[in-house]
Amino acid sequence: MSTPHPHRLGGLERLADEVVDVRFKGLPPDAAGTTAGALAAQKRNLFTGGFTTPVLAMSAERTEHNLALMEEYTRRHGLAFAPHGKTSMAPQLFDAQLRHGAWGITLAVPHQVRVARAFGVPRVFLANELVDPAALRWLAAELDADPGFTFACYADSVRGAALMDEALRAAGARRPVDVVVELGAGPGARTGARGAEECAAVADAVAEADHLRLIGVAGYEGEVPGADRDRVAAWLRALTDLAAAFDRDGRFAHLAPDETIMVTAGGSAWFDAVAEAFAGLGGLSRPVLKLLRSGAYVSHDDGLYRERTPFNRVPEEGGLRSAFTLWAQVVSRPEPGQAFLNAGRRDAAYDQHLPRPHLVRPASGGPVRPAEGLEVAKLSDQHAWLDVAEGVGLEVGDWVGMGMSHPCTIFDKWEMVPLVTEDGTVTDLIRTFF
Amino acid sequence: MSTPHPHRLGGLERLADEVVDVRFKGLPPDAAGTTAGALAAQKRNLFTGGFTTPVLAMSAERTEHNLALMEEYTRRHGLAFAPHGKTSMAPQLFDAQLRHGAWGITLAVPHQVRVARAFGVPRVFLANELVDPAALRWLAAELDADPGFTFACYADSVRGAALMDEALRAAGARRPVDVVVELGAGPGARTGARGAEECAAVADAVAEADHLRLIGVAGYEGEVPGADRDRVAAWLRALTDLAAAFDRDGRFAHLAPDETIMVTAGGSAWFDAVAEAFAGLGGLSRPVLKLLRSGAYVSHDDGLYRERTPFNRVPEEGGLRSAFTLWAQVVSRPEPGQAFLNAGRRDAAYDQHLPRPHLVRPASGGPVRPAEGLEVAKLSDQHAWLDVAEGVGLEVGDWVGMGMSHPCTIFDKWEMVPLVTEDGTVTDLIRTFF
Repeated sequence: MSTPHPHRLGGLERLADEVVDVRFKGLPPDAAGTTAGALAAQKRNLFTGGFTTPVLAMSAERTEHNLALMEEYTRRHGLAFAPHGKTSMAPQLFDAQLRHGAWGITLAVPHQVRVARAFGVPRVFLANELVDPAALRWLAAELDADPGFTFACYADSVRGAALMDEALRAAGARRPVDVVVELGAGPGARTGARGAEECAAVADAVAEADHLRLIGVAGYEGEVPGADRDRVAAWLRALTDLAAAFDRDGRFAHLAPDETIMVTAGGSAWFDAVAEAFAGLGGLSRPVLKLLRSGAYVSHDDGLYRERTPFNRVPEEGGLRSAFTLWAQVVSRPEPGQAFLNAGRRDAAYDQHLPRPHLVRPASGGPVRPAEGLEVAKLSDQHAWLDVAEGVGLEVGDWVGMGMSHPCTIFDKWEMVPLVTEDGTVTDLIRTFF
Repeated sequence: MSTPHPHRLGGLERLADEVVDVRFKGLPPDAAGTTAGALAAQKRNLFTGGFTTPVLAMSAERTEHNLALMEEYTRRHGLAFAPHGKTSMAPQLFDAQLRHGAWGITLAVPHQVRVARAFGVPRVFLANELVDPAALRWLAAELDADPGFTFACYADSVRGAALMDEALRAAGARRPVDVVVELGAGPGARTGARGAEECAAVADAVAEADHLRLIGVAGYEGEVPGADRDRVAAWLRALTDLAAAFDRDGRFAHLAPDETIMVTAGGSAWFDAVAEAFAGLGGLSRPVLKLLRSGAYVSHDDGLYRERTPFNRVPEEGGLRSAFTLWAQVVSRPEPGQAFLNAGRRDAAYDQHLPRPHLVRPASGGPVRPAEGLEVAKLSDQHAWLDVAEGVGLEVGDWVGMGMSHPCTIFDKWEMVPLVTEDGTVTDLIRTFF
């Protein structure tokens, strides 16, 4: 089960055939009616090729760097990798992640699983309990239609297991749904059963359910209360201990001898701790699939994850690069200390930090320069309020390139994102599905 | 120019033909492959018809109420109405607004103008300066191709006017672009020239530009610093005084005698003050088009605009109704005081207030009840953290209906929104373009 997916996903050619039209902001108006594939083939320049502001650019080189780095990182640490796809919701990036050795794709809600399956992602981990009968009906049909579809999700309550089982029975499901018991990250943390005893009760409920099959344990160390190195390590130990206890208690006895027991954790802030904790995991009755789920790495960022990336602690293992630049245009310069850009909450991530100006491209055609003396003070729906330091020569018409914080809330504001090489050439268009 | 638009917009039938697929979250998986029109014709029930959670519902009755109320309000006060379309970006709602007497649609950025034009909106007001050469090239072609297309936008700087003129010349524009000089709402406020003298300088620049034509004055009272009744009224007086001064100075002499001078303002918090200020406006050399631009009314909300609506001050003129309910499902109940819903920042508005639980639909099939004792404590990307008061019987599987704050950041998280009657029947699907 841990062989890397060797093929390109199906359906990507449908994305290349997608007609460029008013659904996609930022793209050149004079490209309307052509296809995304044809527009990419024109190799237009982002700055002179008719793209309109605001426009989000994703760096081709930096994205490739990030993909390669996490492929290498997970391989070095003996981890299977199911990057969280909710970050990008971009089948082209799912495909790149699978080609870079990922075992599968993690997702958060059933709609996202449907997107992944529409493009043939063969292995999906749903990091949530799933108790929606309509979604379970769809899932049952999808599993029964494709014996090659590998799927697992959380169970964190006895009632949840019972609801799942009931809905799958009503749907006439033939294949059981694989579940992992979710261990909560501590008192007051997010989802997940609170402690080993409750987890055992959930496992009992799963064992009793005709349409469920227990295959492992899971959790998310990112929600450990007051997370620091020691607390995260302690919780990860509890998770691996839980796997060992479940195994000792014969809870995986129904698995074939060569089937794996899944143990999974890992967001984008503590995957070094996960690697360390999972390294010691072994000696169970079955091979262990140590599944890391970090997703934000694909674009990385200039805020939350720049601060929190584990590579800050292990720089000798490499470093991620922030791949996004949001380009917006100065539309007003009403006072010496104020400028307004035509990008706001509709275009930029704003839940963690405000965007940070990096570059200025003068409308006059002068050289690109660092955005010194510029700071985003706040965002309206369609404007960024820029504080301009004394003496900074920013003019109406100039483009300002900004870094942002939090990949999940950048991707979801753009349905088609130009992939741009360092020299400004748009080489592809990344379609997202939110 | 103020005759209401009598026809349905073109292209709406294309929306009915749109295939329901994984682009649209919340819609029934078993409807995949059918069209939006066919799904609407099935008159499914939102709660039992296979829709999946989370799902945003827009009340058909409340939306219709809001449309009718503002039609009546603007007619009573002698105002032309160009509701801000950036709120919904939904051509079906633009159409409804035009059928309800709106003069045109206001928009914020050129991409939004392109969406409106793709569906044939005949009159567009762009409440921004437009200095993007690629967007101006598109605009020039659009104006020249359709003599019936009425368009105007802001100018708030001499440089902006010069950049517009230069780009229009380079584009070979034949029709001039109508502009209104934007008066800023005060020191430190958003865009807009600061005071009458600067506005006159902008007007001079417009007059000198071959490809621009001055047709009025504009601004946005919602950004008056420390806005209260007196300050807003004072600024609106400055705006109407500016129109009168421009007229006295012969700045509209190029307009035909029956052409209108445009005076425009109006968000969703002070339209009573705008109505009052504009009532006294007259005696200019040309008829005045008193254009109100409020947009949030179409859905209204349960937060920002519930607090700020002018109808709180003039209840005798009616009251807007909040049209949105976000339905999410309890997926975890890990501690007595905690529940987690499967909707988060990806689904709900969160820039003003957090969502507010209103209703609970028990998975057991019991009656819908008020969501007493439930409060959203925070949002993750895909989860809402719910505080549950002691003794409240909320269970995994239950649906929770929530009101939200800020229409602009609700609409933009949903590409196809079920329009639902009070009895739960889905009668239409509203497509948005962000």
